[in-house]
Amino acid sequence: MEWVGVPPPQAREGSIKSKYTSLPHTDVYFWECKKLKLFRFGRDGSEGELSFLCFGLVQGQTPLFPRIFGHEAAGIVESIGEGVTDVKPGDHVLPIFTGECKECSHCKSEESNMCDLLRINTDRGVMLNDGKSRFSIKGKPINHFLGTSTFSEYTVVHVGCLAKINPAAPLDKVCVVSCGISTGLGATLNVAKPKKGSIVAVFGLGAVGLAACEGARIAGASRIIGVDLNPNRFKDAKKFGVTDFVNPKDHQKPVQEVIAEMTNGGVDRAVECTGNINAMISAFECVHDGWGVAVLVGVPHQDAIFMSKPINFLNERTLKGTFFGNYKPRTDIPNVVEMYMKKELELEKFLTHRVKFSEINKAFDLMLKGEGLRCIITMED
Amino acid sequence: MEWVGVPPPQAREGSIKSKYTSLPHTDVYFWECKKLKLFRFGRDGSEGELSFLCFGLVQGQTPLFPRIFGHEAAGIVESIGEGVTDVKPGDHVLPIFTGECKECSHCKSEESNMCDLLRINTDRGVMLNDGKSRFSIKGKPINHFLGTSTFSEYTVVHVGCLAKINPAAPLDKVCVVSCGISTGLGATLNVAKPKKGSIVAVFGLGAVGLAACEGARIAGASRIIGVDLNPNRFKDAKKFGVTDFVNPKDHQKPVQEVIAEMTNGGVDRAVECTGNINAMISAFECVHDGWGVAVLVGVPHQDAIFMSKPINFLNERTLKGTFFGNYKPRTDIPNVVEMYMKKELELEKFLTHRVKFSEINKAFDLMLKGEGLRCIITMED
Repeated sequence: MEWVGVPPPQAREGSIKSKYTSLPHTDVYFWECKKLKLFRFGRDGSEGELSFLCFGLVQGQTPLFPRIFGHEAAGIVESIGEGVTDVKPGDHVLPIFTGECKECSHCKSEESNMCDLLRINTDRGVMLNDGKSRFSIKGKPINHFLGTSTFSEYTVVHVGCLAKINPAAPLDKVCVVSCGISTGLGATLNVAKPKKGSIVAVFGLGAVGLAACEGARIAGASRIIGVDLNPNRFKDAKKFGVTDFVNPKDHQKPVQEVIAEMTNGGVDRAVECTGNINAMISAFECVHDGWGVAVLVGVPHQDAIFMSKPINFLNERTLKGTFFGNYKPRTDIPNVVEMYMKKELELEKFLTHRVKFSEINKAFDLMLKGEGLRCIITMED
Repeated sequence: MEWVGVPPPQAREGSIKSKYTSLPHTDVYFWECKKLKLFRFGRDGSEGELSFLCFGLVQGQTPLFPRIFGHEAAGIVESIGEGVTDVKPGDHVLPIFTGECKECSHCKSEESNMCDLLRINTDRGVMLNDGKSRFSIKGKPINHFLGTSTFSEYTVVHVGCLAKINPAAPLDKVCVVSCGISTGLGATLNVAKPKKGSIVAVFGLGAVGLAACEGARIAGASRIIGVDLNPNRFKDAKKFGVTDFVNPKDHQKPVQEVIAEMTNGGVDRAVECTGNINAMISAFECVHDGWGVAVLVGVPHQDAIFMSKPINFLNERTLKGTFFGNYKPRTDIPNVVEMYMKKELELEKFLTHRVKFSEINKAFDLMLKGEGLRCIITMED
């Protein structure tokens, strides 16, 4: 138990009281976190005023430790810094790990969500305004993570990374919209864009892949083919509209050939959510010639190389990649919350566990064991 | 000089009197033609009635010889077989090397032009109706080429490969619409779809690449970057709207990096018309992240492998391939002719030479020397 301080937000920043956070794979795997530690801290970094809790990591394989993790959350604006006009104290917001400045060429493009100013940056542990951290323990700075650091009751976030949402939306459910669910959902709805009646294949049936399936279900796909090496995932996948299951381990021939045979030449759309390079190639090669579109979502090892014969492209197949489902954080994410409010998007299916913030290690254990999809962590202890 | 016979069209076929034909690279390179021979032949294969001329090949490296080549042409329907309702004698038509049956899943798809029944087939030398050739010399069959065989005053074509066009269109100009020009034009207009003001890069400044440039000019591109190893092509390319020239030989660094530096991060659209695998990779990697689209047109060596790091896709780039510019032969090609009639498409720029049919070897010589873009061959001698 240590004291951590969070000073007020600076220009273009908002201080957020996190109400609920959850645990995507990124926090566990991307950072190869091994040791976790709980802090107890006051607003000014002193021990004088015990006001909130924070969860951080003090050791790991990557730089920028100590660091406060967490990037899938929902909260309420507590205070705002200079120049902030889009949100005000009391607004319900989702802090997003990538931002939307609304001024760069990407933000002005209808197609891109890869903001030049606030694009995801795993190597930055400070705020843009002054290049410093807002967190400290007894004067020693603690790094931010993805500009969100939501494993804290209070955090400071750039206003470009705050999606203002419908205040009627239940924060303990819509918190998962801020990362993986939107990533998979948008990959299907915004990028693959299957027509009603389409056949869609989804590679990888974790939360992101199942969100891609949910997108296909919402789009009115006639068949959704789930591909995964783990047969335990098939049962739950049915809830997300998956009609056919393919386990590559069950077949001698390449899975793209298996799928082409099942579908009279290939699927209309494929979405790759594993990050495995061979799955990427299979996802591309299993789409139908003439009109098939494959969308890459999963992030592979940095040395991986995508390879395919050019004729697979020349026969009128399309390969696209997406980041965060092509959703612009501030413009589009509030509409994803509205999809849930209108009961089009069924978030409850993703919410398999719930723990108190003080029990956050249980959430890590569940994730590491591969149990469940999303564990909601309640900040108010 | 030999006699060749062409019997009347069978079911779903039309006999066409070719008026003008021209010479795309395909006829020269794809078939590695070395020896050319002129025939003189009668309608019934006998020597009794001298009615038209035919140009054919009797030797070569590929099977199906002897064969009557030619697939870029314009003509007039002379007679029709059973079940033909879409065209009638006297109609002006472009015979197309790939067809549109209007009944298969590809023809019913809005996106595809890769008809299951009549898709390009370089290995078929006969007509579909009876699996036999319509050409013969003294009873010995002569193979068809791409279902068109337009190096003949009369030819027989499946009605699904006949685009009925505006009878006011000058056949000696619009004949080039039936292959390469539409391929390049459609790659830009139908597949890359640059918005007004876009920056477009075109790899390869032969006739197909210049047609892709023409598409970019018509779409209102603000800059058109032409990439070619042959600096002699740069001067003529200006007529097609090319504003910047890049010769990869002039640079130490990869051409995709050169182009990214010229364009503040990459072009909006790239169209690859060389078929060189390295150019394909460069064309993909030179498009801007967030929204860039690269389109592959050129056909590479069959052993070539497209390779790129997955992050190039994940950063929201798109790679598509196209065949015949995604134009459906019967539905769309008449509209390309209309684009010429409305003076939107400037075909004259492509027509650099003209010869009589009896001088067709001159057209081959020009092509082999790389001189000019299209040589129109006048069938009426």
